[in-house]
Formats: sequence, C-alpha cells, structure tokens
Amino acid sequence: MKFISRPTLILDKDKCIRNIEKMVQIARNNHTEFRPHFKTHQSREVGNWFRMSGVDKIAVSSLSMAKYFLEDGWKNITIAFPLNHREIPLLDQLAAKGEIHQTILSPESVLLLEKQLKNKVNIWIKVDTGYKRTGVIWEDYEIMDSLIELLRKSKKLNLQGFLTHAGHTYKARIREEVEYIYEDSLEKLLLLRDRYKPVFPDLKISYGDTPSCSIIEDLHDIDEIRPGNFVFYDVMQSIVGACKEDEIAVALACPVVSIHPDRNKIVVYAGSVHLSKDSMILHDGTEIFGKVALQEKKAWGSTLPGCYVSSLSQEHGIITVTENILKKTHIGDLIFILPIHSCLTADLMQGYRLANGTGIDHMSGSIQKSWH
Amino acid sequence: MKFISRPTLILDKDKCIRNIEKMVQIARNNHTEFRPHFKTHQSREVGNWFRMSGVDKIAVSSLSMAKYFLEDGWKNITIAFPLNHREIPLLDQLAAKGEIHQTILSPESVLLLEKQLKNKVNIWIKVDTGYKRTGVIWEDYEIMDSLIELLRKSKKLNLQGFLTHAGHTYKARIREEVEYIYEDSLEKLLLLRDRYKPVFPDLKISYGDTPSCSIIEDLHDIDEIRPGNFVFYDVMQSIVGACKEDEIAVALACPVVSIHPDRNKIVVYAGSVHLSKDSMILHDGTEIFGKVALQEKKAWGSTLPGCYVSSLSQEHGIITVTENILKKTHIGDLIFILPIHSCLTADLMQGYRLANGTGIDHMSGSIQKSWH
Repeated sequence: MKFISRPTLILDKDKCIRNIEKMVQIARNNHTEFRPHFKTHQSREVGNWFRMSGVDKIAVSSLSMAKYFLEDGWKNITIAFPLNHREIPLLDQLAAKGEIHQTILSPESVLLLEKQLKNKVNIWIKVDTGYKRTGVIWEDYEIMDSLIELLRKSKKLNLQGFLTHAGHTYKARIREEVEYIYEDSLEKLLLLRDRYKPVFPDLKISYGDTPSCSIIEDLHDIDEIRPGNFVFYDVMQSIVGACKEDEIAVALACPVVSIHPDRNKIVVYAGSVHLSKDSMILHDGTEIFGKVALQEKKAWGSTLPGCYVSSLSQEHGIITVTENILKKTHIGDLIFILPIHSCLTADLMQGYRLANGTGIDHMSGSIQKSWH
Repeated sequence: MKFISRPTLILDKDKCIRNIEKMVQIARNNHTEFRPHFKTHQSREVGNWFRMSGVDKIAVSSLSMAKYFLEDGWKNITIAFPLNHREIPLLDQLAAKGEIHQTILSPESVLLLEKQLKNKVNIWIKVDTGYKRTGVIWEDYEIMDSLIELLRKSKKLNLQGFLTHAGHTYKARIREEVEYIYEDSLEKLLLLRDRYKPVFPDLKISYGDTPSCSIIEDLHDIDEIRPGNFVFYDVMQSIVGACKEDEIAVALACPVVSIHPDRNKIVVYAGSVHLSKDSMILHDGTEIFGKVALQEKKAWGSTLPGCYVSSLSQEHGIITVTENILKKTHIGDLIFILPIHSCLTADLMQGYRLANGTGIDHMSGSIQKSWH
C-alpha cells in the first residue's frame, strides 16, 4: 500500500460487509427488529452498506450524529443517549424531518419536552438493569410510575418501551458471563413490561450490545436489538468471545520509525492521538494497547503471537516484538495495529481508507467538536 | 455561557498568556533559547500569542504539523519526532520554504536523506538518556560514532547537536525526582558534546519537557528548551508539581444529563471521544479521568474537593460527587472538567472556544487524519 505515508485507518470492506450480513441474519432468525448503532463507524458510506442489506432504522449516540445521518436520508433514528436538555430545540428540528426516538430517564425531561417541543417524538425509558452507568434503576417504581403517568397524559410524546444497554457484558471474559447478564436483564425488563401493560399494552423491549447479540443464541424475547461495534469488531470483542480475530475489519497502518534490538521493541508513528489510550489486561497481567499484524496482499494478515503494543504516547507507539519479527523489520516498513476499541480509533482517525486507497467518511472528519 | 449546548473545550486566554509569558521569562533568565513545542495546542491563533511574546522558533511532532505552521509564517521548525522514511519528499518540500530541523537516530536515515533531499536540513541526534522510548542510547558509541562520521561528510545535512526528551519526568511525583532526572540527563549530554567537540565544535544541547522547565531552577547549561504542555498545563502537571491547579488554562464544559443520588454520581455528556481515556492513580489508589469545577463568572472556579471523573465511556462521563454538590446539581447544568492530559483532549475536541464564545482553531479540525 504505497499510498500510506502516515498513520492511516484501513477498512477491510469485505469483512465489514460479512459482519453486517451476519447480524442481519441473526436478527432475522430471532424475528427481532434490527436497529444497528452507528456510533462505531459514524460513516455515511458504511451506512449505505447497511441500507443495501435492507436496514432502515438506526441508533446513534448524540443529536449531532442523528443530524449527520438524517441529512443522508435515514428517517428512523433512536438517540440512545439520555436527553440533553440544552439541545431540545435541535431535537425538535430533527423531529420535524424524521421519526425520532429519544431515550429519557427523568420526569423533569418529560415536562420540559412537553413544554418546548412542537413536533412529536417517540420515547424510550432508559432502564438500568445492573450496569450502573445511567438509566432508571429497574426496580425504582417511584420514578418509573411517575414517568408512565406523565407519558400517559402526553400528546407529543409516544412511549415505545424500555431500552437498556447492558454494558457490563464488555467486561465479561467467558461466554457464560454474557449469557448470565442477558438472562438477568431480560427478566427485569419483562417484569417492567408486564407491570405497565394495563396502561400501555404495546410496550417494546430494546436490548443488545455486540457481545450479547454475537453470543446469545435465542433472542426471541427481545423486540429490537441495537448492537454497534460488530460492524468492525476489535481486540476487546475477540477477547470477550464475540468475534474471531480475523473478523476484525479495521486496522491502523503505521510506519516503523525506530528499532531497538536491546529491548525487542520497535517504535511506530501512531500514538494515542491515532489509536486512543484504551487498553486491556490479558490473563497473564500484561497491559496491551493493540495487537499487531504484518501487511498481506489484500490488507493485513493474522496477528503475530508474542507481539503487541505495549505503550503509547501522543504520536509514538511502542511495540514489543519477538526476536524473529525484530530481525525482519526495517525503518519505513508498515505495521498494522488491530485496535483494542475500534469506536475510539475510528473517531480519532476521522475517516478510513479501503485497501485500494479509496477514502471513506467519518462524522468527526466533517464537524469540529468544539465549534459546531 | 449560554452558547454551550454540547461538550465544548473552553480556553482561558488570560491564563494561557500568563503561562506563555512565564516560560519566556524562564528561558530569558537562563540565557537559553526558547523553542516551544506546539503539539499541545496545535493552534495558529495560540501560536500568534507566542509570536507576540517574541518567540520565532518552534518544535512540532509531525511533518503535517510542521506544514500547518510553516504555512502560517513560522520559518524555523524542529520536527521532534524520529524521521519518517515515508515522508522524505514532504520534508524536502518544507525545507525549501523554511529552516527545518529534523531529529534522526539511525545511520540508515542519514544515507536516505543524503540520497533523496534536494534542500538543506538541520539535524539533531535524538539521544535516549534513560526514558527508553526512542533515540540512540547515550553510551551506544558504535551508532553515535557512525552517525557523526556520516554527518561530517554530508553536504546537505547540518548537524546542530543532541536532543533529548526526558519523558520519565511525567511519572515523577516529587520535585526531587524531576531534579534527579535533569541532572542525570544533563551529565550524559555534556559527555557526548565533549566527545564530539573535536569534529563539531559548536554542538548544542536541546532539552526540556514541561516538568523540568517548570521545576528546575538553573537551566544555564542547556542551549535550548522545548516544553509544550505548559501552555495549558493539566491535572497531571499539577500532580507532578509543575503547576498550580489555577494555572490550568483549558476545561471541558459539559451538560449534566443524569443524576444518581443512590450512588453520589452524576453523568455528563462528555466521554472518551471528548476527554481521551488518559487517567491518573492518586496517592490513595483512586483512578481519576479528570477533576471537576463549577462555572464562575469568567470561566470556571476552583476544583471541587471529593469530586472527580471516575469513569468514561464513548459519550458518557461518570462523575463521583459529594452529597452537597449532588444536591445543588440539576440536569442541564454545565460542569467543567479539567483534563488529565490537555494535549489529547485538545486533539479530540478539534478546536477551542474562549469564554465569550470566540472560536480558536486546532489542526485536527482542519485535516482528516486518515485522508490527508
């Protein structure tokens, strides 16, 4: 890949499309709606690949992202992030142009929306089934009842159901843990649905992070799944058991800038401003910031055993390598790093290149976060 | 600050200019050249504030960054990053337009430059005085002699001296550690300079990360200092002892989106795609991703004792707060987060806003990393 002279995020289109088609099939087999989360790729072009697989509804994590995709023709969008009271005017603008779903978790938000919105918005109550990041705790009936009562009276807000993100699956290291979290969350969500059936007979359940959707065999009880990371996967997902390493669809290509035989390390031009500082602790206690592969015809080959990114500074990546790899490596060679967390690497790199050099967009390449 | 509806990086211009002037004065008092590293702010506007303080030479960490500033009128630029063999044509282009200094660490690089360059380039040998990230190990005389010999014969490359980055000062937690690292590095660099004096009588020493330049009282033995982070400082520098918390010149303003009295946590719209995943372990073992302050007239107030960012996901920031702060906080309020590592937060946010709303540029807002 002669076009690469700086750190460049390479996207393997074939793998990516296989990942998309696999998840479409999982949703179909389970008779559940498929609403992929677009926060991982944040790309209109990758969005088109979903469209070609028949997808017509999506989830996003900010109103800015909803706007980016609404303007590209996506008309059914869930903002799977708690309502930002400072952006209700933007929410209202978007709701005038498409079917917008907003998650909420506070009665205060319902009152504000009721007062400020001109357009109708679909509502999902964000439920905390144990992750403890955000959402109404599933058994906090005081808040839950008050939300249901306010939404029952509302004319602008259409309650759709309960939405959860069981993010604790990301910390699972064995399949059984993911299964346990799923069963446990599902039970809580079904209890909630039954409790409010007399008032809202058609409440839905929206669930589904990448580990659950990749690992759980039976998702029939769920009305809608919202995985996102599966589009690329990453080293973390491979360690959780959600994918194989050869399903990872992005890798950061980076030039080798120095070689240190005294300590079996090579240094590449690619640091925390390219990869992100996300790391994982392996079973043996080693902290890694990425796995490593060499160039192969179509993109990159299998990950190299005994080689990993051992630390990162702003623009330097320090890679621990075997003696064998060290001997074969020269300053100026390209090394491919498989990211720990592909969402963050993609956001930092602001775009992708296919192996043939074609550029692929990312939202962070077309907005300026502090300014827009 | 009513203009803020999303995570926004606020730059306190007064503090920033005070930080710049303080460092200008430190360089003056020590009769050492001042070549500030621009990788922290990456901003042409902030660059102008340096110009107004009489600065006329800078350091950068990539050729892209050199280009960004060269095109803005900076004519004397050091690329304080090992030569990237894949970008020699760009280096040559830049060298046609300004006085470019490149760091190198391998005889191979000298041979390649000699062959490919049309324009003259100044050279600094990157020396490893103990940080073990990159550079020629200070006592590896085999490589050092061979570099000196090649550079002696060169017609295009002008050896300037030895450059080091003693990045291990960032891990220091007491002033004496920073002083020890400085004394130790200086001794090694002076030995090197003496060794090669017979061949190159005017070799210079370039040294100086932010902790050293902020803490060490006597820098007379150094020919040039290259601190960068001091322009904003951050929580890490305040813990190292390089600054006071009220000298930190940037903070991320972010809207509160949920409040959790059951566990004394509030959640803000600001995650790892805004702040970066950089963290620090405090003396008591707590891992923090930022300190927290409330809005005050001109920007933000003192950091709140007992409050800190305790975890981050892509767009969520989870803040541990005291009961008192929890009671005073409402959804929709703004919270200010002082970053652990301001360089990474600035790079992610792609720009700044002054307290009056004025936008300030950052290089990552005007290039797309994977594409350019």
